[in-house]
Formats: sequence, structure tokens, C-alpha cells
Amino acid sequence: MRRGLVLVVSAPSGAGKTTLCRKLLATDPEISFSVSYTTRRPRPKEKNGVDYFFVDENTFQKMINQGLFLEWAWVHGHFYGTAQKQVEEALTSGRDVLLDIDVQGALQVRQRLGRDAVLVFILPPSLEELERRLRARGTEEEEILKRRLAAAKEEIAKANEFDYLVLNDHLEEAFSNFYAILIAERQKNFRQQELLSRFR
Amino acid sequence: MRRGLVLVVSAPSGAGKTTLCRKLLATDPEISFSVSYTTRRPRPKEKNGVDYFFVDENTFQKMINQGLFLEWAWVHGHFYGTAQKQVEEALTSGRDVLLDIDVQGALQVRQRLGRDAVLVFILPPSLEELERRLRARGTEEEEILKRRLAAAKEEIAKANEFDYLVLNDHLEEAFSNFYAILIAERQKNFRQQELLSRFR
Repeated sequence: MRRGLVLVVSAPSGAGKTTLCRKLLATDPEISFSVSYTTRRPRPKEKNGVDYFFVDENTFQKMINQGLFLEWAWVHGHFYGTAQKQVEEALTSGRDVLLDIDVQGALQVRQRLGRDAVLVFILPPSLEELERRLRARGTEEEEILKRRLAAAKEEIAKANEFDYLVLNDHLEEAFSNFYAILIAERQKNFRQQELLSRFR
Repeated sequence: MRRGLVLVVSAPSGAGKTTLCRKLLATDPEISFSVSYTTRRPRPKEKNGVDYFFVDENTFQKMINQGLFLEWAWVHGHFYGTAQKQVEEALTSGRDVLLDIDVQGALQVRQRLGRDAVLVFILPPSLEELERRLRARGTEEEEILKRRLAAAKEEIAKANEFDYLVLNDHLEEAFSNFYAILIAERQKNFRQQELLSRFR
């Protein structure tokens, strides 16, 4: 049986990461979403255990101390983390896992999992377009928007640590490019040793 | 401008390499076929300058001596080689190149071009299926067939040196998996530096 891989996806807010990830999960039957833990409050439509596991800071801190996280980060005033066990079990049972996490977390996963992790960074066409998209959402105050744009610049500065950069200009094209990465990575030599053993 | 990449494809005879390569060239407008040199005679429908450049042994030997080949090999009693210049020009002008060559040649290209080369090995579902496909062609004598099968085993033994292994069981699926590798590789971080520079 092939060992699973962890597809780690990061992007600045407004690059379209959530849409691409949802579409991937809906398209490919063999990858599943790793539900993260967070200390932030659920937004109106979010469900516990589906979008996140919502926990209090005390619980989160205990989990850190017990070494239960594959990665964790403090982002915009809240904790976010991925449980180690969930991911390890998937890998050893040959299932692929999608992690939608921030740049700090992605780099921790690379450190911990090496080549079992595939790091993808989603880029908007430009900073101007990113600003336009954030404004179009219309839900955010000028102050928050400025903070998100500054954060975006910092995140993009770390994009060079990722394996792949996906340009999200047109959604359909971006999705097929993004999906191709998963399909290609499954065919990497070191993941195909079972196939090769048929010929020995 | 993005630097081009060289997609190097090898496979045992009967794995379906030629069909996959033709389909790739017909599907993707941005990759072109690198026409190899050979000393073997043209088969009925082959055209000089399209399928191969057909040259005599003397000419081929001179080209070797002048260091004009990116790779060359002696296969089944004939010389085959890829001109260095053709490939270099494509890479520096941002065009991707498809090389349909044997295992020896592929490993030489990896040696010479490093990460500019992407090595793909096409595998049949099994040796039994490979034999069945070779027999179904019906054109070959038992002796030649045995020799091809023995050669196939030797080639597959070197598949581990390739970056990707593509299983060709069902053609449509194999093609979309094969094509995904090209699409994914174009998005590799080090090939996307122009995109990233928009944000600096």
C-alpha cells in the first residue's frame, strides 16, 4: 500500500485558498480534510468537528504541553493547531490529507514530515487585486483590511519556502493547476514503490 | 520569462510511450518535441526531420566527437542522440521540450541538466500484459519478442532513477496522470520566480 501524503496549502487571505481546497475535496475521493483546533469563536455557519474543533485556551495550552500538535501557530490573536495523531494515522493507512494552515504552520510541517509533506502556496495575481478582492467582501473595516494586506506581504515573502506556487487568477484554471500537483505527487518515484515491486 | 523544462520520457517497448507523447504534444501548445538523430533506417511512414533526423554512422560519430550531443546511446544495434543546441535554445527561450529517449539517454540528461530535466518512466501494468501487447502487434518474430522482453526487465530495473512513475493501464487515465506531471512541474517554486517577483 502506498504511504499517504500531506498536501499543505497556505495563502494570504483573499487569494482564494478556501475555494480551491473545497473544490479539491469535492473532486478527489482519496483526500480528506484534516480538521484543525482553534481557540477562536465559531463564525455563524461553522460547525464544531467539521470546520474546526473549537476549544478554549486552557485546553489548547495543555495539548501543546502534551506534544499533541504536528504544528501550531498564533495568528491574529488566536491559536490554531493540527493534531499529530490524525495526520500520522492517515499517512500510515495510505490516505492523503489536506491541511489548510498558515505559513508558520506549513514550515513546521515540512520540518516534521520531510518529503511526506507537499507545500503549496496560492498567490493572487497582484497585491492590487488582493486588495480589490478583500474590499469586495465588504465585511471588513479599513483598519482590519490594512492589517490583512500587511500580513499578506509578510506571508508572500515566505512563499519561497514552498514546493509549488499556484497563481489564482482565473478559478477554473487555478483549480486544474492545483489539482495537477496532487495527481503528480502521487506518482513520485518514492511513492510508487509498490507498483515497481510488481516487476521484481 | 520562465526557463523551460525538459520532460524526458522513457519506457520499455509496448508500455504505450509513443501514444502518450503524441497525445501530450497534441494537447499542450507550449511543449514541443525534440527530434532525435539516429543511424537506423526510416520505417515506412517516418519522415526525416519530423520523426528523426536520419544520418549515417560516419556523421553520427563526428557529432559525438564534436560534443554536439546532450545524450546519445547505442540501442538494438543503432545510434540515437539528442542535439545539445536544440534543447539549450528551447530552455533559455522559455519553451518546454519533450524527449522520447531510452533509459541510458535519460540518465545522461539528468546528469547534464540537473533540475531542468524531469524524468518520467511509463510502466505497463505487468510483464505479462507487456508480453500480451507486444504479441498483439503481431509484427515481430519470437526471437525479437524475447529480446524485447528481456530488455524491458533491464529498463524497468532502472526506473528507480526516474522522478515519476506513470502506470499505463487505461490510456485516458494514464494520459491525465502523465499530463498532470507537466502542469505540476511548471508550478515548481524555482520555475515561478518571475511570478514571485511581482510582489517584491
